Amino acid sequence: MGYKKDDNFGEWYSEVVVNSEMIEYYDISGCYILRPWAMEIWELLKEFFDAEIKKLKLKPYYFPLFVTENVLQKEKDHIEGFAPEVAWVTKSGKSDLEAPIAIRPTSETVMYPYFSKWIRSHRDLPLKCNQWCNVVRWEFSNPTPFIRSREFLWQEGHTVFATKEEADEEVLQILELYRRIYEEFLAVPVSKGRKSEMEKFAGGLYTTSVEAFIPNTGRGIQGATSHCLGQNFAKMFDITFENEKGERSMVWQNSWAYTTRSIGVMIMTHGDDKGLVLPPKVAPIQVIVIPVPFKDADTTAIKGACESAVYTLNEAGIRADLDARENYSPGWKYSQWEMKGVPLRIEIGPKDLANKQVRIVRRDNGTKVDIPSTDLVEQVRVLLDGIQANLLETAKAKRDACIVSISTWDEFIAALNDKKLILAPWCDEEEVEKDVKARTKGELGAAKTLCTPFDQPDLPSGTVCFASGKPAQKWSFWGRSY
Amino acid sequence: MGYKKDDNFGEWYSEVVVNSEMIEYYDISGCYILRPWAMEIWELLKEFFDAEIKKLKLKPYYFPLFVTENVLQKEKDHIEGFAPEVAWVTKSGKSDLEAPIAIRPTSETVMYPYFSKWIRSHRDLPLKCNQWCNVVRWEFSNPTPFIRSREFLWQEGHTVFATKEEADEEVLQILELYRRIYEEFLAVPVSKGRKSEMEKFAGGLYTTSVEAFIPNTGRGIQGATSHCLGQNFAKMFDITFENEKGERSMVWQNSWAYTTRSIGVMIMTHGDDKGLVLPPKVAPIQVIVIPVPFKDADTTAIKGACESAVYTLNEAGIRADLDARENYSPGWKYSQWEMKGVPLRIEIGPKDLANKQVRIVRRDNGTKVDIPSTDLVEQVRVLLDGIQANLLETAKAKRDACIVSISTWDEFIAALNDKKLILAPWCDEEEVEKDVKARTKGELGAAKTLCTPFDQPDLPSGTVCFASGKPAQKWSFWGRSY
Repeated sequence: MGYKKDDNFGEWYSEVVVNSEMIEYYDISGCYILRPWAMEIWELLKEFFDAEIKKLKLKPYYFPLFVTENVLQKEKDHIEGFAPEVAWVTKSGKSDLEAPIAIRPTSETVMYPYFSKWIRSHRDLPLKCNQWCNVVRWEFSNPTPFIRSREFLWQEGHTVFATKEEADEEVLQILELYRRIYEEFLAVPVSKGRKSEMEKFAGGLYTTSVEAFIPNTGRGIQGATSHCLGQNFAKMFDITFENEKGERSMVWQNSWAYTTRSIGVMIMTHGDDKGLVLPPKVAPIQVIVIPVPFKDADTTAIKGACESAVYTLNEAGIRADLDARENYSPGWKYSQWEMKGVPLRIEIGPKDLANKQVRIVRRDNGTKVDIPSTDLVEQVRVLLDGIQANLLETAKAKRDACIVSISTWDEFIAALNDKKLILAPWCDEEEVEKDVKARTKGELGAAKTLCTPFDQPDLPSGTVCFASGKPAQKWSFWGRSY
Repeated sequence: MGYKKDDNFGEWYSEVVVNSEMIEYYDISGCYILRPWAMEIWELLKEFFDAEIKKLKLKPYYFPLFVTENVLQKEKDHIEGFAPEVAWVTKSGKSDLEAPIAIRPTSETVMYPYFSKWIRSHRDLPLKCNQWCNVVRWEFSNPTPFIRSREFLWQEGHTVFATKEEADEEVLQILELYRRIYEEFLAVPVSKGRKSEMEKFAGGLYTTSVEAFIPNTGRGIQGATSHCLGQNFAKMFDITFENEKGERSMVWQNSWAYTTRSIGVMIMTHGDDKGLVLPPKVAPIQVIVIPVPFKDADTTAIKGACESAVYTLNEAGIRADLDARENYSPGWKYSQWEMKGVPLRIEIGPKDLANKQVRIVRRDNGTKVDIPSTDLVEQVRVLLDGIQANLLETAKAKRDACIVSISTWDEFIAALNDKKLILAPWCDEEEVEKDVKARTKGELGAAKTLCTPFDQPDLPSGTVCFASGKPAQKWSFWGRSY
């Protein structure tokens, strides 16, 4: 690694995603190649999430990549939100198409005309669709691997209910799954909360999200969103059903998604000057075993002990692998696997062989322990669990150290300049957020609300909004964001 | 079902894919919505295939959807094959792109510039990439759900070896997996073989395939292909490595794919005038349990027995479900689940309850048996295995009955008019295949080679080509195709 995380964060990030072999830059700006070291993490997350939503009776669908202009524009607020980023197909072979066709930036307008067709009666409800797919948003600002790319992978869930209560309940069930992806799997602390009117999903009723924070840049980052669309789309796409009394009713809808961005947030959170640091639950390789054959050592016996360790760990369901390459020195291998962020390294040399032990080195804090070979599986399990917990705790402590409660405009600006995660009493009025944005515009981007966290500190009566002086309604997180 | 399979095959197929809720037609021609009844089959096939290729050390990748014109055109034969079907993005938002960007019709040209970058030494080989994704081929002829659509889902494997021997070996390993998908899972008999020079993959060295046949239309259909690309792409994209002697060598490459088309071939093969017939191994529901509460029956007890049957089957790993809807009659439900092709129906009524038995009805041949409830799991297993085997045997018998060996042009034409799968002695010359195509052109499409099967009947010396009179080299399958 040539760059330091604390000195040149942007360059450090670009270097770490490439050197760890997660990403290869592609010859179209904003598009990236996801290599196995990234895709295997994506598959582990998908396996968890897909099983959880299947318990909630979600069904797999695949809707087309393309949508006609006419349908895309049906929901006015929605298309206003997405129009500038839509990629248009206008030709096939050498012929012009009769009309341009859009590539989905998200699939509300692709799906909902058919929901209208499929739903007739209350017996057709709830309807619960999920698809794993690619979407395209042709953005021009700061393409960054995982974080902001023109094509990305995601799941999008789209559900339809007879009542608002059912929709409200599901919004939070899904949000909890997203929290688990970040906190339990990626070891990234997030805040659950509600987005402001300005920041909610275009065309929806309200948006909830899990929000992470990157201390190095002082920026918030939206981790995943679970939207209640209310009945706005139902009106535009005429999605109604006959209720139990035989009356026509309008449905309530949700949509929710998380993307490959989650991997980027994890990298930014845990990575260090040696490279990636992977939480054990998502590490494609949890333990790398490296033979350390000093001069005159019995290399066959050492290699045998290494193979045996890998076999024992694999049998116990631990993702272990052997690096037996003969053209690289042990030291070179240590650096490479540190760069790739593997949680544990096991070294076996002549002394270890003689003592019937192995040396284990933690990636997260560098501590080394020698353990008897007979305790291998048990000790490795304890260490992996410990790393997983330590990464989350450490990240939480760093994030929490950045949170500042403010009450005045001057304190707000000071905290913003200081790259803090700002908790501010707010009147919750759209005009005031617009005003804050206008007043903080600049090279680094304007400040905005990240979310109003569900977990609210006490708000003494009489507290006023930091920006407008009106009575404060809630504490909200503010800051710059990705 | 309004149409009969034997009378109006095309209309029957469209009706069955829609009525069984596999497909919804979309408002862009040639694009289709895949509903859960199709996607769950796709997921079952994917689970099998992905696990098998991971045993072969394939790694998951995701390459971009887009490719620049410049790179797409690098391999001349390749682009000639795909150019007429490429969809082009020319605009984002309201702005024209600087240069049009193609949507991948397949990913050779997307991937191989990076293979060139990643591969330096023999130690970087073999390189084995697989991705599950969508591709777009903007075809204008006869869009048909699953069989020919403008966007479809597939896996594409791309592998790189130091030697031709390794590449040759893998081509056949993968072809065998494709055979297993068709024969073991979809119960569709296929022939393994080699494609002719005219029909091979554009830019490749040779193509192998599994070929199915649809007796109703007398058309062959390519089930999946495993290509050896030789060194053609390696030359164009400069993919070389330093071998063990320190010399620069050129790599050998394969690519291989199967698509959602496989589901369409299955439907065409097994479906009947009542709808789908699903092979148990891929049926999302293998057993549907339906309460049959005659007047005055103890409906609570019947429903309890049904729930218990479903529970017992699920616990045994059998995909069983209960249809407890009260607003539909048992008869209506029978028809609906027959339409959806569920392999076994279990009916439980008062008499069954009294006799501690259940009635089981097979979808494939309609036979009914009453079995003691205590034997449920064992008997259902036997029946499901029996149906799986019976579907393949029946399809094989029907397919085999269509095979005709011919030796002269007149016999060839007669067999073609009779919608047979034609096995013909052939000189294996490209000019002769072109000539056969020209001479058979017509409303139904020209005849062409389907494959030269690996399983070759005896070819007596002196046998001549049916079309050219030159010495025959091999027996090849000929016919019209999808």
